[in-house]
Amino acid sequence: MEKDRLKQQMHFIHYIDQLKLIQRRTRLFGSDRYENDAEHSWHLSMMALILAEHANTSVDLLKVIKMVLIHDIVEIETGDIFLYDTTRNHDNTAEEAAAAERIFGQLPPDQAQALIALWQEFEAGETPEARYARSVDRLEPILQNVSNEGGAWMEHGITSDQVRARNQKIENGSASLWQYAEQLIDSSVERGILKK
Amino acid sequence: MEKDRLKQQMHFIHYIDQLKLIQRRTRLFGSDRYENDAEHSWHLSMMALILAEHANTSVDLLKVIKMVLIHDIVEIETGDIFLYDTTRNHDNTAEEAAAAERIFGQLPPDQAQALIALWQEFEAGETPEARYARSVDRLEPILQNVSNEGGAWMEHGITSDQVRARNQKIENGSASLWQYAEQLIDSSVERGILKK
Repeated sequence: MEKDRLKQQMHFIHYIDQLKLIQRRTRLFGSDRYENDAEHSWHLSMMALILAEHANTSVDLLKVIKMVLIHDIVEIETGDIFLYDTTRNHDNTAEEAAAAERIFGQLPPDQAQALIALWQEFEAGETPEARYARSVDRLEPILQNVSNEGGAWMEHGITSDQVRARNQKIENGSASLWQYAEQLIDSSVERGILKK
Repeated sequence: MEKDRLKQQMHFIHYIDQLKLIQRRTRLFGSDRYENDAEHSWHLSMMALILAEHANTSVDLLKVIKMVLIHDIVEIETGDIFLYDTTRNHDNTAEEAAAAERIFGQLPPDQAQALIALWQEFEAGETPEARYARSVDRLEPILQNVSNEGGAWMEHGITSDQVRARNQKIENGSASLWQYAEQLIDSSVERGILKK
C-alpha cells in the first residue's frame, strides 16, 4: 500500500518533467530565448513570495505557491494558449478540465483530489489566493515584454487597449500591482514598444 | 517608501530571471537536453509538495518550498558545481555566502535578511525542513540519471560507491526516500547503467 503510493507519486514526478518542454510566447527577460512553463511556474512562485505584501487581502501563501506551481501542468496535454489569441477559449475549458483529471489522477486519490480542487480554484479566480495568484501570472509577461522592447506585443501587433483589457484583472488580486502595471503600459506606449 | 520597496522587489524579480540560464550537469527525464536551475527548482518544489508524507519528521512545507525555490539562486553568480566534482568545495563556501548577500541584498532589508537566513539554514542542513529539502535536491538527479540510461553517471564515469557516498544524506531527511534511492542504485548497477 505504502509502496504503491510512493510508486504513483514517483510516476507523477517523472511525468510532469514534460512541463519543461511546453514553450510560451514570451521570452526570458532581455533575451530572445522563449520561456517554458516550468521556468514560468518557478518565477511566479518567487513573485508570489516576494510581492505578497501587495495582495489586496492577506493570503495563505502556501496555497498561492501551490497554485502557481501546478497551474500550467494541464498544458502538458493541451499546450499553451497565447493570452491574446481570440480564436481559442481561455477559460476553464472541458479539454483542460479533462487533462487535470488525467494528470493529477496519476497520484494517490487524496492527493489527486486536492490538486484538482486547487487547480479548479485557481481557474475560477474567486478566492483571495486565486485572485492574487492570477495577478502575478498576468504581471510576469508584462515585465518580460517591457524588458524585451515590446517582445510578444510587438511580434503579434498587440495594442495597449488589448493589454489593458486582458490584464485589468490584476487589480482583483492587487491594486498596487495593477497600478504598477498601468504605469508600465503607459510608458511602453510613450517609448513606442506598444501600439496605442 | 512604499514605491521604493516595490522598485527593489521588481529589480530582484528581474535579476533572478538569470537562474534560467544556469545549466546543470543532469538532463531532463528521458531527454538529452540539460536541465537549468529554474526548472530544477520548480521540480524540487513539486517533489517537496508531493513527497512530504515521507519526511522523517513533520515539516513546515511553506518553509521547505521557499528553501528549494531559492536554494540555487547564488549560482547566478557562482555557477553550478557538479555533485561529483572533487576539485571544488561543495559546502557553504565564502564565495556562495558573499553571492547570497549581494543577490538577496537587492531586496528591502527585512526580506533580504529573511532569505539569507533561509538560504543559510538550507546550506547548514540541520533543521527538519533543511534536511528534507536537501533530500529532494539529491533525489532528483538520481531519478533523472536512471531515466537517461545512467546519464551524468555514465558520462563522468561515476561509481555506485560514489553515488551512495554523495547521496546517503537523503536518509537524514527521509529514510523511505533513501530506501527507494538505494533500490534504484542497486538496479542501475544490475542494468549496467552505473559502474560498480
